Amino acid sequence: MVFKKITLIGTSTESFDDAADDAIDRAEDTLQNLYWIEVDELGVELASVEERQYQAEVTVAFELEE
Amino acid sequence: MVFKKITLIGTSTESFDDAADDAIDRAEDTLQNLYWIEVDELGVELASVEERQYQAEVTVAFELEE
Amino acid sequence: MVFKKITLIGTSTESFDDAADDAIDRAEDTLQNLYWIEVDELGVELASVEERQYQAEVTVAFELEE
Amino acid sequence: MVFKKITLIGTSTESFDDAADDAIDRAEDTLQNLYWIEVDELGVELASVEERQYQAEVTVAFELEE
Amino acid sequence: MVFKKITLIGTSTESFDDAADDAIDRAEDTLQNLYWIEVDELGVELASVEERQYQAEVTVAFELEE
Amino acid sequence: MVFKKITLIGTSTESFDDAADDAIDRAEDTLQNLYWIEVDELGVELASVEERQYQAEVTVAFELEE
Amino acid sequence: MVFKKITLIGTSTESFDDAADDAIDRAEDTLQNLYWIEVDELGVELASVEERQYQAEVTVAFELEE
Amino acid sequence: MVFKKITLIGTSTESFDDAADDAIDRAEDTLQNLYWIEVDELGVELASVEERQYQAEVTVAFELEE
Amino acid sequence: MVFKKITLIGTSTESFDDAADDAIDRAEDTLQNLYWIEVDELGVELASVEERQYQAEVTVAFELEE
Amino acid sequence: MVFKKITLIGTSTESFDDAADDAIDRAEDTLQNLYWIEVDELGVELASVEERQYQAEVTVAFELEE
Amino acid sequence: MVFKKITLIGTSTESFDDAADDAIDRAEDTLQNLYWIEVDELGVELASVEERQYQAEVTVAFELEE
Amino acid sequence: MVFKKITLIGTSTESFDDAADDAIDRAEDTLQNLYWIEVDELGVELASVEERQYQAEVTVAFELEE
Repeated sequence: MVFKKITLIGTSTESFDDAADDAIDRAEDTLQNLYWIEVDELGVELASVEERQYQAEVTVAFELEE
Repeated sequence: MVFKKITLIGTSTESFDDAADDAIDRAEDTLQNLYWIEVDELGVELASVEERQYQAEVTVAFELEE
Repeated sequence: MVFKKITLIGTSTESFDDAADDAIDRAEDTLQNLYWIEVDELGVELASVEERQYQAEVTVAFELEE
Repeated sequence: MVFKKITLIGTSTESFDDAADDAIDRAEDTLQNLYWIEVDELGVELASVEERQYQAEVTVAFELEE
Repeated sequence: MVFKKITLIGTSTESFDDAADDAIDRAEDTLQNLYWIEVDELGVELASVEERQYQAEVTVAFELEE
Repeated sequence: MVFKKITLIGTSTESFDDAADDAIDRAEDTLQNLYWIEVDELGVELASVEERQYQAEVTVAFELEE
Repeated sequence: MVFKKITLIGTSTESFDDAADDAIDRAEDTLQNLYWIEVDELGVELASVEERQYQAEVTVAFELEE
Repeated sequence: MVFKKITLIGTSTESFDDAADDAIDRAEDTLQNLYWIEVDELGVELASVEERQYQAEVTVAFELEE
Repeated sequence: MVFKKITLIGTSTESFDDAADDAIDRAEDTLQNLYWIEVDELGVELASVEERQYQAEVTVAFELEE
Repeated sequence: MVFKKITLIGTSTESFDDAADDAIDRAEDTLQNLYWIEVDELGVELASVEERQYQAEVTVAFELEE
Repeated sequence: MVFKKITLIGTSTESFDDAADDAIDRAEDTLQNLYWIEVDELGVELASVEERQYQAEVTVAFELEE
Repeated sequence: MVFKKITLIGTSTESFDDAADDAIDRAEDTLQNLYWIEVDELGVELASVEERQYQAEVTVAFELEE
C-alpha cells in the first residue's frame, strides 16, 4: 500500500474554505482513493483579479493502485 | 503566573472555523482561565468519513492555578 | 519595479476570513498598488476580549512608487 | 469529535523502531482510542548510559471521550 | 539534465526501513533513472488498521528523459 | 524508560532567565524526575500588564514512572 | 481555477541563474499556462561530474485546464 | 482593530535582556499602543565593536489607530 | 544603537543578482546607514510579464537615528 | 564545560539504524567524551551505488577538554 | 575572504548570558578573527547535574586565514 | 563510508555565484574527496566594506578517509 502526494492550489472569490474545497473537488474529479489533504498555505491574490481571490494551497494524499 | 499549553484537534463537517471552535469549546468545558489559541495546522480527512471532515489543530494556552 | 512587504494582524468576532479581510481593508485604506497577501498565522484571543476574537496575521505585498 | 496530542520519548538499546514502539506501548497502556503517531525527532544518548540508547520522540494523537 | 521530484508514502507492518523500501520499490516499478530519496516524515497509523502500520513519506528524485 | 514532554510559559517582571526559572519551579512542584528543558520562545507582554512581563515558553522533559 | 505545483531540479555548469532557467525551459516544453516558480534550494554537485554542476530546485506553478 | 508588526534589533554591551529592552525602549519612544514583542533571534557582534555587543532581534506588535 | 529591518522584493529581467541589487538600490535611495541584507526567497514571475521576471525578496537592516 | 557539535553522514547497505551507528562508530574512533547524537536527515542514495545506500546525517555532541 | 562557522554549547549555573559567554570565551581561546555568534538554542540540563545548568548553543563565525 | 559536513561563507564583490565559488575554492584547497555543497543562506554586507560584498553560506560535504 503506497500513497502519493500532489500539491494543488484552489481558488475562490468567497472564502478560504471554498478555496480548499475547490482544490479537493478538482482532485476528486481526476483521482481515485483520496485519503486526506493538508493545508500548506493560505493567501489572497489582489493585483491580477477583479475581486479578492482567496487561495488555498493543499497537499492531497491518495492511494496508488497496485 | 505560569501558563500551560496543550494541543487539540477540533473537527467539523462544515468549515475550518467550526473545527477551531470545536476545539475551543472542548477546552472551555474542561479548563479554566483560557488565554489564547494558535492554529498549528489545517487539514481535511476524506477516507474514513462519510463527508469531508475539516480539522483544525490548535494549541490552547491557559493559566495554571497557583 | 520594487515591492515592499508589511505585516498586519486583522481581527474579527466572526471568522478567520473576516479577520483576513479586516487586515486587507486596512491595507487598502492606506496603501496603493496592493499585489497579494500571505497568511502567516491564525489565532484566537480569549482572555482580554468579551467574545472570541479571531486573528489573522498577514503579510501584504505592494508595489513602491518610483 | 476532538483529538488530543501528547509528546512521548521512547527508548531502546536496539533500534529506532523499538524506541518508537516503546513510546506507543506506553501510550496504549494508559490511553484509549489512539489514532496515529508522528515521529518528531530521533536521537541517541551516549553519555549517561552503558549502551547506546536510541530515542524516538513521537507525538501521539487520540480521541477524547465526550 | 533535469530532475523531477515526487512524494510517496510507503507502508509496512514491520519497520520504518521496510516502509521506506516499499516506497522505493514502487518508484522503481514505474520510473527510470532514480537518483536518490529523502525521508520527509515517519509516522505510525493505529486507528484504521489491524496492526501498527509504519509509514515513511519520501521524496524521490529521478532524471527526466530529454 | 519513557519520557513525556509538556509545554509551560513562565513569567517574570525581571528577566528572561527568571521567566524560565519560573516555569522550571512550577514543573518541580508538580512533577518528579525532571530531565531537561528546552526554550521554545521568548517574548514580552506589554498591553495587559503594568510592567514589562518577560515570558519564556519552555518544553519540560520528565521520566514517566513505570 | 486550480493550479498544480511540481518540483524540478535544473542543472548548469555555469551559474545558479542558468540552472533555474534550465528547469523553467523544461517546464515550458511540456506544460501550458505556467504562472510562477519558487526557488526551494541551491546546491553544487562535485563528486560525480567533471565540472561543478550548479543545481536549482524549483517549484513550478501552472494552471490546470478545466 | 488592526495590529501592525515591525522588526527591530536592540543592542547592549551587558546582556540579552538589556538588548531586548533597548529595542522596546525605542519602540515606546515612537509608537503608541504597544501590545507585545516576540524575540526572533539572539546574537553577539564581535568584529566591529570594542566590547561584545549583545543583540536581540524582536518583532513589536502595536495597534493601529483607526 | 537600534536597527530596523524591512522587507523588499527587487525585480530584474536578467538575473537573481540584479533583482537583489534592484532592492538594495531602492533601499539606498530612501534610507541611511544600511548595514546588511539577507535574501529570504528567490522566484520567477512568468504569467503577468512579457519576459521572465527574476525576483529576490530581501530583508534590509539599517541603523535608526537617535 | 563546553560542548562542540559536528555533523557526520553514516552509510549502510542494510538499514537507517546501521547508517546512524556507522556515524557514531566513526565519531567514537576519533573523539573523546561523546554525549549524544541527533538525527538531522535520513535518505537513500540510488544512482551512484550498486545497492541502496541508506544514509543518516547526524549531529554529534562531545565535551571539549579544558 | 572566507568565513567558517562552528557550533559550541556553553554552560553556566547562573544564566543564559553566562552560558553564551562561556562558549564565546572558549572560541576566543582557540580561534582568531572571530566575527559574530548566533544563538541557536537555549536549554537547561536538570537530571545529571547538581544545580540547574543553563546551556546556550551558539554558532561562531570566524575568518579563515589565507 | 562516512561523510563530514562543514559550513563556510564565501564572499565576492561581483555576484552570489562567485561567492559560492569562493567557498568551494577554499574547501578544495584544504579538503579531499568533496562530494557536494548546499547553499544555506545568501546575503550582502554593506556597512563594513567599500563595495557590496555578496556572501554565500554553504555546507560542504566530503568523504572522511578510513
